[in-house]
Amino acid sequence: MTAVPTFDDVQEAAARLKGLVHHTPVLTCSSLDDRVGARIFCKCENFQKAGAFKFRGACNAVMSLSDVEARRGVATHSSGNHGAALALAARLRGVSARIVMPTNAPASKKAAVAGYGGTIVYCEPTQEAREASLEAVVRETGAAFVHPYNNAKVIAGQGTAALEFCAEVPQLDVILAPVGGGGLLSGTALTAAAHTPGTQVVGTEPAAADDACRSLAAGKILQANDPTTIADGLRTSLGELTFAILQRHVAQIVTVSEEAIIAAMRYVWERMKIIIEPSSAVPIAALLDNRLEVSGKRVGVILTGGNVDLERLPWIAPPSS
Amino acid sequence: MTAVPTFDDVQEAAARLKGLVHHTPVLTCSSLDDRVGARIFCKCENFQKAGAFKFRGACNAVMSLSDVEARRGVATHSSGNHGAALALAARLRGVSARIVMPTNAPASKKAAVAGYGGTIVYCEPTQEAREASLEAVVRETGAAFVHPYNNAKVIAGQGTAALEFCAEVPQLDVILAPVGGGGLLSGTALTAAAHTPGTQVVGTEPAAADDACRSLAAGKILQANDPTTIADGLRTSLGELTFAILQRHVAQIVTVSEEAIIAAMRYVWERMKIIIEPSSAVPIAALLDNRLEVSGKRVGVILTGGNVDLERLPWIAPPSS
Repeated sequence: MTAVPTFDDVQEAAARLKGLVHHTPVLTCSSLDDRVGARIFCKCENFQKAGAFKFRGACNAVMSLSDVEARRGVATHSSGNHGAALALAARLRGVSARIVMPTNAPASKKAAVAGYGGTIVYCEPTQEAREASLEAVVRETGAAFVHPYNNAKVIAGQGTAALEFCAEVPQLDVILAPVGGGGLLSGTALTAAAHTPGTQVVGTEPAAADDACRSLAAGKILQANDPTTIADGLRTSLGELTFAILQRHVAQIVTVSEEAIIAAMRYVWERMKIIIEPSSAVPIAALLDNRLEVSGKRVGVILTGGNVDLERLPWIAPPSS
Repeated sequence: MTAVPTFDDVQEAAARLKGLVHHTPVLTCSSLDDRVGARIFCKCENFQKAGAFKFRGACNAVMSLSDVEARRGVATHSSGNHGAALALAARLRGVSARIVMPTNAPASKKAAVAGYGGTIVYCEPTQEAREASLEAVVRETGAAFVHPYNNAKVIAGQGTAALEFCAEVPQLDVILAPVGGGGLLSGTALTAAAHTPGTQVVGTEPAAADDACRSLAAGKILQANDPTTIADGLRTSLGELTFAILQRHVAQIVTVSEEAIIAAMRYVWERMKIIIEPSSAVPIAALLDNRLEVSGKRVGVILTGGNVDLERLPWIAPPSS
C-alpha cells in the first residue's frame, strides 16, 4: 500500500496545477439559502476543465510522472469523468492515454474521451473484464495506471478544490461533498483538517449506494456491489487510501433518496441556472431534504461535475419507441 | 413621446440599482473561443434576479417612482420575463404589481409572476385584448404602466449590464446582444457609445423575427407581426425610444436561423454548463454560424436569461400522448 497522502501533498498539487486547472467560481443562491435556512456557497467544479473536479486529480497524477514514465503513457479504467479527465491531462503533457471502457458505456462518455485524444480500449461490462483489459494494456505498453481515486496523487489533486474554496470563503462551518470512491471527500477532508480545523467535513451519498456510510460504521471497506443509482459517479466502493483518510477526518456520511437527488438536480438547474450532473446534486439533496442540521450555518458544497446526456433528463419520460 | 434616455440616465440607474441587482459574473469558455477564433466574454444575466436582465430595467422603473405613484402600484402586459421582473421589483418596494397575461401563457411564466407576489390579470391572447386589459387595470387602480422596453427608465436600467461588463472586461471590440423590443440593445448601445466609443454594438435576432433588421434598413419601425420563433423573448417590435437609439448607435443587426439558435443553446448547456433560454442563444448562434467577422477580436456577449421550461427542451421530442 502506498503512503496515505497528507495536506503537504495537497499543497504540492496546488503548486503543480497552477495555470493548468480552472480556479472555479463560487456561486450563491438566495432562494436556496431561504429554503434551507443557511448560507450556502457552491464551489462550481462543474465548470472545471473536462466538466468535473476529476481533472484536478488526473492532472496532478500525470504531471507528477517522470519524463521516462510519462513517455510510456497513462492508462485507466473508467466509464465516467475520470477517463475524460485523464485523456485531457495526458494531452496537455503530450503523452498517450488508454482508457478501458465497457462496450455499453454511454456514447457521450466515449465521445468525451475520444475528443480529448484518448484511445478507448473496449472490454466486456464486468469488473473482471475491466481489470484484465487494464492489466493487458499496462503489460503491453508500460503505461502508468492512474486509479480513479485510490491513488495518492489523485487524492491530493482533488483536495485542491477545497483549498481554493476555503481560501475564498472563510469560516465555513461545514463542507459537503459526494462520496463514491472517496477521492474528492478524502482530499477535501485532508485540506479542511489542516487548513481550517473548525470546518466539519460531511460526506453525502445515495441511500441506494450507501457503502461508504456502512464501511465507516463497520470499520472496514464494504463493497458497493454495482448499486443502481442515478448518481452514476457514486457507484464505486472506497479504496484503502480513501478509507483511511475518511476514517480519521470525516464526521458523518448522510444518505439521500433517488427522488431527492433528481429533485435537487432540477432545483439547481431551475434556480441557479447551472448544469450539474446527478452525482453533484447529492449534497444539495441532503440540504433540501433536511438530512443534517445546518440552520444558520455557513455551508460549503462542492458541485462536482456537469456532464449530463442532454437527450435524457431524469424528469422527462423518454419518447416511446 | 418621452425624452430619449442618455448615458447619464444609465449612470443614474446604476447608482439606484446598487445592492438591488446582482452584479453578474463574466464567464469564458476555451472551446467556444477555439471554435469561433476569437476571445469571447459572456455576461451572465441568466444569473440575474428573476433569471433575466429584465430585472434591471423593471427595478429602475419601480424605484424611480415617487412614493405617491408607487403606492398605486405598477402594471404591465407581459407573457415573459418582464412580468416576473416587475413583480419582483414591486415586491422589493412593497407595492402591488398587476401583470396582464394571455390565458395561454406557459404555466412556468404564470408561476414565476405569482411566486414573486404579482397579481395576474388574464386576457385573451390577442394584442387588442392585452392592451384593453392593461388600460382597464390602469384606469381602475391608477397603477403606473411600466412598458417592457419603450420606457426611458427601463432602457437606462438595461444599460447597466453593459456598464458592469465594460468596466470588468476592458477593450471589447464588439458587444453582441439579442434584439426584440430593443430595450437591452439600446441601453447597451448608449453605454458603449459613451463609455468605450471604440466598442461596436451589434444586434442579433432570429431570421424568423427580423423586424429590427428590416426597420433599421427602412428607416422606420416595421412591425414584427407575431412571428414564429423559438426565441420567445424576441417576438416583439421596436418602440419609438429604442428605435431612435438603435438608429444612432447600432452598427449592424445580424440574423440567425432557428436551427442555429437551438444548436447554440445546446452548445452553451453542454460546454459552458449553464442554462440559457433560446433568446440568449441568438448571439452565440451568430458567432458559431460565422454570421459576422470577429476573427482574433475580443467579443462580449450578453447572455440575457435562463428561464426555460425544463419539461420541454427543443432537442428532445415531446413524449407522444
